[in-house]
Amino acid sequence: MTLRAEFLNAMSSLVSSVNIVTTDGTAGRAGATVSAMTSVSADGDAPTMLVCLHHETSAAPAILQNGCFCINLLGDDQAEIANVFAGRTQCADKFLVADFATLKTGAPALTTALASFDCSLQSDERIGTHHVMIGAVRQIKQAEGQPLLYGARKYLKVSP
Amino acid sequence: MTLRAEFLNAMSSLVSSVNIVTTDGTAGRAGATVSAMTSVSADGDAPTMLVCLHHETSAAPAILQNGCFCINLLGDDQAEIANVFAGRTQCADKFLVADFATLKTGAPALTTALASFDCSLQSDERIGTHHVMIGAVRQIKQAEGQPLLYGARKYLKVSP
Repeated sequence: MTLRAEFLNAMSSLVSSVNIVTTDGTAGRAGATVSAMTSVSADGDAPTMLVCLHHETSAAPAILQNGCFCINLLGDDQAEIANVFAGRTQCADKFLVADFATLKTGAPALTTALASFDCSLQSDERIGTHHVMIGAVRQIKQAEGQPLLYGARKYLKVSP
Repeated sequence: MTLRAEFLNAMSSLVSSVNIVTTDGTAGRAGATVSAMTSVSADGDAPTMLVCLHHETSAAPAILQNGCFCINLLGDDQAEIANVFAGRTQCADKFLVADFATLKTGAPALTTALASFDCSLQSDERIGTHHVMIGAVRQIKQAEGQPLLYGARKYLKVSP
């Protein structure tokens, strides 16, 4: 097995939360489903977070142009929203699948998200196929619930 | 509530896999428990991964000097290893809690890890309190099992 195949195989044993990352501005609305997301630092001028986005998603160049993004953490009943933003469920306008509002930056915040982290784009670095984007958090909205998880190539839930 | 407090609170609703990140070399052995880990790209000169490490951990300067680290994904029966490497369980030598071997880079690979990603340090950027370190994967070892999860400030398991 090649190292690449081993990498993809080993990565599938990882379990992570599922998010949709959205943006709006001069480049228009765009969004993508992302599991490669993490917090960076609670301290500094603002709290910081990080997402990795494939360069071929429409969201990546739109975020670069708009200068903002919102990370929306999905709840365990929102797999369909993840499917739509991942392109697994086709639809003319992804943003019709649920209700969105705007917070400080103007990026669409999913009103029913477990948490929405509204960010200004602080830095971007292209590594291989992906953009590593760091955002400075401007506003946060939070709700109660359990997160949707993804691992072993399927959606999972936390054991009660 | 301050934005920082909101951030920490919202981050606790996120669920993620638990890893210990280890290193060895001229700076000696060090390790830390890390949930801020993600894959970056499967393609490029090598697959790439990313970890965020607090600048005050002994592991951060050791990795910078050693130029390598191993990300060890923990199984759902390895919470005690996570506690030791997080400093929640005190012990004279963290590395006595389990068996380690070395792969290509010389960083300690937990022999019972669900997956070990042996990496050369490719880049480091300090953001607020944390180092964002990107590693080029040199070797991977994998086992069967379910990952240990952390969220809502406790260990969790995937629902069967």
